[in-house]
Amino acid sequence: MDTIVRISYPPVHPGTDSTGIVFAETSPDFIDLFKPGEKTGRRRFFVTDAKVATLALFAPFIARFDDGICGDDRLVILGSGEGYKTIESVLTIVKNAIDAEFSRKDSFVAVGGGVISDITGFAASLFKRGASCVFVPTTLLSMVDAAIGGKTGCDFNNYKNMIGSFYPAESIYIFPEFVQSLSENQYRSGLAEAFKTALLYDAELYDVFKNESEKICSRDKATVNFIIKKCAAAKASVVERDFTEQNIRTYLNYGHTFGHALESLAGFGSVTHGDAVAWGISRAAALSCNIGLCSRAYKDEVLSVLKRYGWETDPVPSIIKGGAAGARLLSIMHKDKKNTGGGIRLVLQKGLTETVSETVGDDVILNVLK
Amino acid sequence: MDTIVRISYPPVHPGTDSTGIVFAETSPDFIDLFKPGEKTGRRRFFVTDAKVATLALFAPFIARFDDGICGDDRLVILGSGEGYKTIESVLTIVKNAIDAEFSRKDSFVAVGGGVISDITGFAASLFKRGASCVFVPTTLLSMVDAAIGGKTGCDFNNYKNMIGSFYPAESIYIFPEFVQSLSENQYRSGLAEAFKTALLYDAELYDVFKNESEKICSRDKATVNFIIKKCAAAKASVVERDFTEQNIRTYLNYGHTFGHALESLAGFGSVTHGDAVAWGISRAAALSCNIGLCSRAYKDEVLSVLKRYGWETDPVPSIIKGGAAGARLLSIMHKDKKNTGGGIRLVLQKGLTETVSETVGDDVILNVLK
Repeated sequence: MDTIVRISYPPVHPGTDSTGIVFAETSPDFIDLFKPGEKTGRRRFFVTDAKVATLALFAPFIARFDDGICGDDRLVILGSGEGYKTIESVLTIVKNAIDAEFSRKDSFVAVGGGVISDITGFAASLFKRGASCVFVPTTLLSMVDAAIGGKTGCDFNNYKNMIGSFYPAESIYIFPEFVQSLSENQYRSGLAEAFKTALLYDAELYDVFKNESEKICSRDKATVNFIIKKCAAAKASVVERDFTEQNIRTYLNYGHTFGHALESLAGFGSVTHGDAVAWGISRAAALSCNIGLCSRAYKDEVLSVLKRYGWETDPVPSIIKGGAAGARLLSIMHKDKKNTGGGIRLVLQKGLTETVSETVGDDVILNVLK
Repeated sequence: MDTIVRISYPPVHPGTDSTGIVFAETSPDFIDLFKPGEKTGRRRFFVTDAKVATLALFAPFIARFDDGICGDDRLVILGSGEGYKTIESVLTIVKNAIDAEFSRKDSFVAVGGGVISDITGFAASLFKRGASCVFVPTTLLSMVDAAIGGKTGCDFNNYKNMIGSFYPAESIYIFPEFVQSLSENQYRSGLAEAFKTALLYDAELYDVFKNESEKICSRDKATVNFIIKKCAAAKASVVERDFTEQNIRTYLNYGHTFGHALESLAGFGSVTHGDAVAWGISRAAALSCNIGLCSRAYKDEVLSVLKRYGWETDPVPSIIKGGAAGARLLSIMHKDKKNTGGGIRLVLQKGLTETVSETVGDDVILNVLK
């Protein structure tokens, strides 16, 4: 297992001054990696979800726990899906750790997708004002994006990621083998964030998306590894330079203001995050073209690549068709946490890897939603 | 109004890289200070409690708001007391700010005691992963301790401050005039933290407590101002050197492990924080003496000063007498967030301004609780 990236942060939080990203092409052996129940000088509080807990790669580890207990270590299995990305889930983790008398020198370990790492990292940041956390992402989305960079949080009041903290993991273990066990939906959701990364930072990765759709769709191992490593390195570089999203990190939200609004309007969990972001990218590209930022040729090519992977690029996605969907999306976008009063701030593109952030009027947004 | 102290922090959080403490001997004019409803480039979300809202010094400001609204600014009045230091109060603030479409460039302003500043600061830290906050402490406790240093949070699961964050205020406005309006209980609660500060850092302040009890008890203005300035400076110095409580900041917990256990066992709100800490100081001093750290003469003098201000110094305070109180206190102390496994870590003293942190066994603790 190699540490492929190390990200450093301003050392304000105890034990959170850097993140080591470990990439292992071997099959994950969780018992060997974490040695549950053995005294390691630090107790571990494992958090996963009901779906991940049954994966063949992980089940033997789970079996070591009896009613959530294995020596000094603890395990909590939450429900699976965006519907569990709630403050109640976060507080369940905290409550169990308090009951088990965990200290802030102990560690929270999330094994799962972005929902699990976001809420576990959030719980770790709140617990006695901060204990360290470790992530083992099991989805492509989490490997290329969600687990990296210390954004933790949960949905609240029917808005995405409305509360949370900047709190990076101490270590992230990436086992690409998990990608082979993902459903088509989950895999495509991760691809969307990877495609976004390509558009923002990596022409070589973009070419792979454009020219190697067969390898990508068949989950060719070398191609998957290439995508993960490229994305992890790109995100690490951005996060290290702008941890709290004061400037360049906002670009990572490309497609997200539209995408989050779609997720919120459709009802969390009805559409995958990646599918929502992919549709959002199509809207951001269309808007960029409409206001003369990028060429029609660039916009058309981006939309054609999106379609090739099955993503919707229509102004109004089928799941929310009818009933003034555009106006309702716009209203939700106004509550997005990137807005700072006045218009809506969007990430847009002049072309491949040429990204800007601009405040645009409601009319311009409504134009690409009808 | 003078800025008497400026504390700097590692700049990880947006807008939270320093705290300016402003000290104003003039009567507070909130309308002039905050200009509610006027466009200031940043919307303000004011949080206070039902008791503070009715204070003559503050009521004219409150009257500017109609159903919580004054132009772009908002006001929420929470219930008063430790019973409201809950995650529900925190989420009420967040929810109202979301509903009013606040952005993370806006600001949360807490006017009140430690409960209000702790939960408002916590809400600010969570809201869209962090907006700035401003504190106007209205209690002595908050002026000398709670408002300074960026510890935010709330009680949870019947344990004190179990969840929270390190998140400093941008500015703190101290108006000592508020001290004159405090109840005897509230005033004495603040004195306890000031006395703790004297024991830890300031022999001159200790002498004032020892020799000027009449001036202190009559709230002589010059004496109150002296106490506040001394304590703010001492706490600022500690916090700047150890923001996240990795080493010297733990000393500020002198008396608190015992005190928190008492608050928890008696039921939050039944005993003031200061009275609980004062009793905790008596236990820590007794324990320090028992294990040969400090002299009997020092311990006796500390206890006699405590008694002079009406604080209990008995092994078991009257409010929890009977039914194995010592064992129950010990059990709660084991869940304190300063413990890191093994025994209980306590702040103890060798003498005036000579402080240490040591892990002690259960028997030693039980000895000073019976």
